[in-house]
Amino acid sequence: MSQYIWPDSVNQFLHKLEIEHPIIQAPMAGGPTPPELVAAVSNTGGLGSLGAGYLTPEKLDSEIQKIKQITDKPFNVNLFVPESVEPRNPSKNVMNKLEEFSKELDSEIPELVDSSQSGFDDQLSVIVDNKVPVFSFTFGIPEEKVMKKLREEGIFIIGTATCVEEGILLEQSGCDAIVAQGSEAGGHRGSFVNGDNMPLIGALALIPQLVDNVNIPVIGSGGIMDGRGIAAALALGASAVQIGTAFLCTEEAGVPIPYKDSIVSSKDTSTVLTKSFSGKYARGIRNRFINEMSDLENEVASYPIQNSLTRSIRNAAKEKGDPEFMSLWAGQGVSMSRECTAEELLNMLIQETNEAIKRISNHL
Amino acid sequence: MSQYIWPDSVNQFLHKLEIEHPIIQAPMAGGPTPPELVAAVSNTGGLGSLGAGYLTPEKLDSEIQKIKQITDKPFNVNLFVPESVEPRNPSKNVMNKLEEFSKELDSEIPELVDSSQSGFDDQLSVIVDNKVPVFSFTFGIPEEKVMKKLREEGIFIIGTATCVEEGILLEQSGCDAIVAQGSEAGGHRGSFVNGDNMPLIGALALIPQLVDNVNIPVIGSGGIMDGRGIAAALALGASAVQIGTAFLCTEEAGVPIPYKDSIVSSKDTSTVLTKSFSGKYARGIRNRFINEMSDLENEVASYPIQNSLTRSIRNAAKEKGDPEFMSLWAGQGVSMSRECTAEELLNMLIQETNEAIKRISNHL
Repeated sequence: MSQYIWPDSVNQFLHKLEIEHPIIQAPMAGGPTPPELVAAVSNTGGLGSLGAGYLTPEKLDSEIQKIKQITDKPFNVNLFVPESVEPRNPSKNVMNKLEEFSKELDSEIPELVDSSQSGFDDQLSVIVDNKVPVFSFTFGIPEEKVMKKLREEGIFIIGTATCVEEGILLEQSGCDAIVAQGSEAGGHRGSFVNGDNMPLIGALALIPQLVDNVNIPVIGSGGIMDGRGIAAALALGASAVQIGTAFLCTEEAGVPIPYKDSIVSSKDTSTVLTKSFSGKYARGIRNRFINEMSDLENEVASYPIQNSLTRSIRNAAKEKGDPEFMSLWAGQGVSMSRECTAEELLNMLIQETNEAIKRISNHL
Repeated sequence: MSQYIWPDSVNQFLHKLEIEHPIIQAPMAGGPTPPELVAAVSNTGGLGSLGAGYLTPEKLDSEIQKIKQITDKPFNVNLFVPESVEPRNPSKNVMNKLEEFSKELDSEIPELVDSSQSGFDDQLSVIVDNKVPVFSFTFGIPEEKVMKKLREEGIFIIGTATCVEEGILLEQSGCDAIVAQGSEAGGHRGSFVNGDNMPLIGALALIPQLVDNVNIPVIGSGGIMDGRGIAAALALGASAVQIGTAFLCTEEAGVPIPYKDSIVSSKDTSTVLTKSFSGKYARGIRNRFINEMSDLENEVASYPIQNSLTRSIRNAAKEKGDPEFMSLWAGQGVSMSRECTAEELLNMLIQETNEAIKRISNHL
């Protein structure tokens, strides 16, 4: 086990979470974070996270059991807070386009069904019953009674903010820490205020503004791929970092080979924000689906209806190994990805952070 | 004069430019960077920059003379590389809307005139004749013969990149250093490749990817407002930083009071990208002009035609002290602005950088 000592500025956070390194592997829903990845990160002294937003309570329970079998270290489970906005159906053009894609992929024709977001309360019960050490969430703030229950159970609570206003609301709701999701981040935007004016603030500007406006630890995220990014986030005032994309090419990640290949051949300009896959803006590598849906983007259904509508297409693409119709979520640092084990990645991140700090402090 | 010593990683850059601190005051065209600001920054050991994109050769010459009267330190002059894209006229709706605004402000009705971009060669001659120590540019790359001439004159050349591809082209063209313009940055985007897919990469992801792909110094920019941001940029591998917005509220800046007031009352979410003012995307504080033009944004004229069309409106707004029709360029860190002199700001930035580095290195 590493004997690396972190600066005082992050020690309080490490002590509270009972982890060794201020590195949280981001909870990436939809497959990339199987128990093996979560446990490997936690076993190496970071905080592994299960992206459980799309899991049934039964599946969530079995995944948590598996994690507990591989590690006795703290880990995090992340859920999606249900939407409070009015559901919106897709346009006829969107349905026609999705049908066209389905035919090309020989997949089921998408049907508009009632996809109400039940399940959150049941998912939460599984988390409480299993005494999960850390619970994080995105897309909003759970109801007051939920937050109260989690606090009573001694669960460490982490919310997700994309602007200062969201951070202040999260602190007021009783969160123990806040992920500052920079505009560089891959996957879904966690924004829940400001409506159509979705904040897209770069981490370098977002982290210090959040740090200045809340009194709980801020976890920097967005575009952090190596120790240089970690050192930068800590310099900006973050108490820890959350890293997603950099873990996608680890051996333990549940990422199909064509998805990994897309990451390996990516450039700094490869990612784009789209709501065509799910109805909610998310950052991923540009492909045919995104390009051909781009003119219809304002006609897609709201989340999670659009997500249900595109599921069969995404699943068929996975089975065929066709990256052009998968959601290849990735952040703007994607070209800096490395293929290795989760333990190797964490150890590199720790060493590189040390080196980056040494490089800029050699005059002190 | 400060006796502050910087890390080895920036010393080579400081030595080449013969400056004391790796802090470049950004060249903000259109008024904010009068000779008094440029000289104050250079006199304090940073690199002051004249934003000369809109200046006539005569005005440019007199501004340079004034700078030289106040400082004998190196300074930078920045120009706009002329566009290579086909000019596009505005729609009738755009013209009608601008006419409506003009009437409201009692300003001249905008007229579509031939606004070809002559002047660049004459501006360059002034720079060469005056042996300006540092020349920076944005919106593209000057012709080969121009770059050759500048190099022969011993002028230090800085280009502007918003993605790795642009950085590589700039290095190949003979630049001595590259500004990495993060998506957080205020004012005009410097992008010149990728056409409609304008890169908007956060500084935290852009800086290390540029550093990894070019062999000349990278200057971090975008959202840097205090020493935390400077330390972060250096940790990411930057050899220096370029800071614009933070200088807008200095006493020496040529910024109208209503503009300063908008900055002082801003939030992290106050800025937005718009091409309604100039035909080219730029980041500024949201106001009535931006909001009311937003539906017409894709119908505005190309740069610099749109810029000419809105000039009388912007000038009338300045005269009336009405921030709702000014271009309030600012970056995403705008809420961290401070009112002081340029010298005070620079000294704070230097001290804070030192503190931020100390804070994260106290374990070494």
